[in-house]
Amino acid sequence: MAPSADVSGASLPMGTQEHTTRQSNPYQPVGDFLSNVSRFKLIESTLREGEQFANAFFDTETKIKIARALDDFGVDYIELTSPAASEQSRLDCEAICKLGLKAKILTHVRCTMEDAKIAVETGVDGLDVVIGTSHFLREFSHGKDMEYITKSAIEVINFIKSKGLEVRFSSEDSFRSDLVDLLSLYRTVDKVGVNRVGIADTVGCASPRQVYDLVRTLRGVVSCDIEVHMHNDTGCAISNAFCALEAGATHVDVSVLGIGERNGITPLGGLMARMIVSDREYVTKKYKLHKLKEIEDLVAEAVQINTPFNNYITGFCAFTHKAGIHAKAILNNPSTYEIIDPADFGMTRYVHFASRLTGWNAVKTRVGQLGLTMTDEQVKLVTTKIKALADVRPIAIDDADSIIRSFHLSLDSDAPAAPAVST
Amino acid sequence: MAPSADVSGASLPMGTQEHTTRQSNPYQPVGDFLSNVSRFKLIESTLREGEQFANAFFDTETKIKIARALDDFGVDYIELTSPAASEQSRLDCEAICKLGLKAKILTHVRCTMEDAKIAVETGVDGLDVVIGTSHFLREFSHGKDMEYITKSAIEVINFIKSKGLEVRFSSEDSFRSDLVDLLSLYRTVDKVGVNRVGIADTVGCASPRQVYDLVRTLRGVVSCDIEVHMHNDTGCAISNAFCALEAGATHVDVSVLGIGERNGITPLGGLMARMIVSDREYVTKKYKLHKLKEIEDLVAEAVQINTPFNNYITGFCAFTHKAGIHAKAILNNPSTYEIIDPADFGMTRYVHFASRLTGWNAVKTRVGQLGLTMTDEQVKLVTTKIKALADVRPIAIDDADSIIRSFHLSLDSDAPAAPAVST
Repeated sequence: MAPSADVSGASLPMGTQEHTTRQSNPYQPVGDFLSNVSRFKLIESTLREGEQFANAFFDTETKIKIARALDDFGVDYIELTSPAASEQSRLDCEAICKLGLKAKILTHVRCTMEDAKIAVETGVDGLDVVIGTSHFLREFSHGKDMEYITKSAIEVINFIKSKGLEVRFSSEDSFRSDLVDLLSLYRTVDKVGVNRVGIADTVGCASPRQVYDLVRTLRGVVSCDIEVHMHNDTGCAISNAFCALEAGATHVDVSVLGIGERNGITPLGGLMARMIVSDREYVTKKYKLHKLKEIEDLVAEAVQINTPFNNYITGFCAFTHKAGIHAKAILNNPSTYEIIDPADFGMTRYVHFASRLTGWNAVKTRVGQLGLTMTDEQVKLVTTKIKALADVRPIAIDDADSIIRSFHLSLDSDAPAAPAVST
Repeated sequence: MAPSADVSGASLPMGTQEHTTRQSNPYQPVGDFLSNVSRFKLIESTLREGEQFANAFFDTETKIKIARALDDFGVDYIELTSPAASEQSRLDCEAICKLGLKAKILTHVRCTMEDAKIAVETGVDGLDVVIGTSHFLREFSHGKDMEYITKSAIEVINFIKSKGLEVRFSSEDSFRSDLVDLLSLYRTVDKVGVNRVGIADTVGCASPRQVYDLVRTLRGVVSCDIEVHMHNDTGCAISNAFCALEAGATHVDVSVLGIGERNGITPLGGLMARMIVSDREYVTKKYKLHKLKEIEDLVAEAVQINTPFNNYITGFCAFTHKAGIHAKAILNNPSTYEIIDPADFGMTRYVHFASRLTGWNAVKTRVGQLGLTMTDEQVKLVTTKIKALADVRPIAIDDADSIIRSFHLSLDSDAPAAPAVST
């Protein structure tokens, strides 16, 4: 979505800003040996979970474009739709494996020998195996009991390992599964030698402290890596991923703009926003953050959606400051009302001054941008005029500028009252 | 945003669904005496925080419409822009106080006698007083020290109480303030007799477990209510509000679609999604959830934005199911892949069957909706045909229906092969 006409603002120079001033709160938790917040890995699933988004249809060319862009961004893994889903899905999987990307290529398969056999032939680096373990899915989806699930899991895992590929084993709907069943299953597959186990909040019901507790418990049961897959139905997908990392998870599933089944999963950009606040150095060194908007635009166009107005980092208002009190402080030091430096993502800041909530500090900056000179008293006077008009109707940047210029002109014609103008 | 043409789907009857089957996970935390998850109150701030959204300009008529709609929805409080912001803000505040709404009316003021004096004359039920306490805001915004802040707070609070009004005292940027300063200040204002203290994550940097810890600590220091105000810059606004309630907070600030400074705060709809999963009875009895979409549409139009494609509950894909394995289970029992019943919000579910990820269970339902009869084997065969076309290009519901009808016709002309068709 393009900024609408009445989003008037003044872009600030970025060079004046010091990253060291973006410090976190003074009583952040002390170092925690469990936490992987500073060494997490991304499993990018736009080409798997994202393909399950209502609007998604990716042809081969688009899939390749997206895969290359994600690889360039620096994601650790790219996950693809199961080659068992359709013939074209299989061909696309093979095509992407042949691109020679730095990212490892994974495909996502049901826990059956049939699917695994098709998948191992595509050239992928690893398989993400999944099976439903909640009583809902056991009853209404596949109809299998835990004994059967365990037996299939061992068979499929051993087969994938025999092909020399990475294997992840995940339950589906983990947060509505029986804890003892789940831990028992994970302990078994860990002993069989999986690279990762996965925890999936398939319906988006989990809450952050619940995620922390489950992952921390699991951390004590398995020695392999732990991946988490969080849906966003109740608005916790980013938080839940973060709390999982705090509890010892190692890998997070994301998709561009969060697209996936229903309203989707943890978004790549949103997770970057969360993680850069926690460890700016790790995130900025590992990922090409200034490519984020380009990737989002590519995917948004492919699935015919608008980037949400309030999207993390790239939404049109993410770095727009409006209330007078905010504008004043931001002009003094951006860290006052910003925890993320827009320049890290190649974005810019706007200080909104054409509204009734504006303050004279914001107007003063605008006066300077227009190349005019006024005393503080004069700026305060013209601010009153801007607020008065903005009180009656929405005003655009042009309107505010006109008021400033007209006021400045009246000062010129009244020289004794405004000696500062001529300097 | 209107659903685009290729979101083909089959709406399911709602009456078949039992709410009792939407149970939570089997190992949810046991009852916690600190938690207010089942008795939270809403402070709706679309007309204050929301007015600080880049695009917002609410004229008096729009403000009144929004206030009435929120009141009808059942919010406990409606918070308005400070009457000190502009003359029209003051007049609008008076006008809304005169509507005789069930919700209490609050206005949000800086911690100064000047602002408080203007506000108490408007007819509001209470004042939300705020002052910055982080070293950033003390240095770059108002330039006051903690001693000065404490002194002003006491004076302003006593003045408001002398007028018989409710008073909340909040720090700004609480999560980057010194913990000891903060607790000391809150203990003081609690003793002076405030109704609520507020914790504000003004820059959106806080994480869920950090919020839990701070609110739980504060719960042991003050005896008054605790309000939280969470910005969403790093995607934790809903989670942080939820964790605050778990730790003993009583009131949550929200705005429609989350609109506010930058990318906004905890959204009303998103919080409803979170809370209905935690306590369906409390939420459905207290709030008119089926009015949510109407309120969101009203505000979206007033500030000229599109509802995000992935918006909680009301986004066009919130209840759309696409992958074959999901569709099959949803058709058996919606709880398998849905934690929220769309009917609670007057919304409907779509099972997407016109894609290459479809499965024969979804197609079988569509065959039934078209009034056709086929054996399972025949449905599986036509599913292959649909997937084959969907593998080549995006297909619309009409395309899939055409394939089904054409296939069904071919069965009629080949009677011996399809005896079930004629029954």
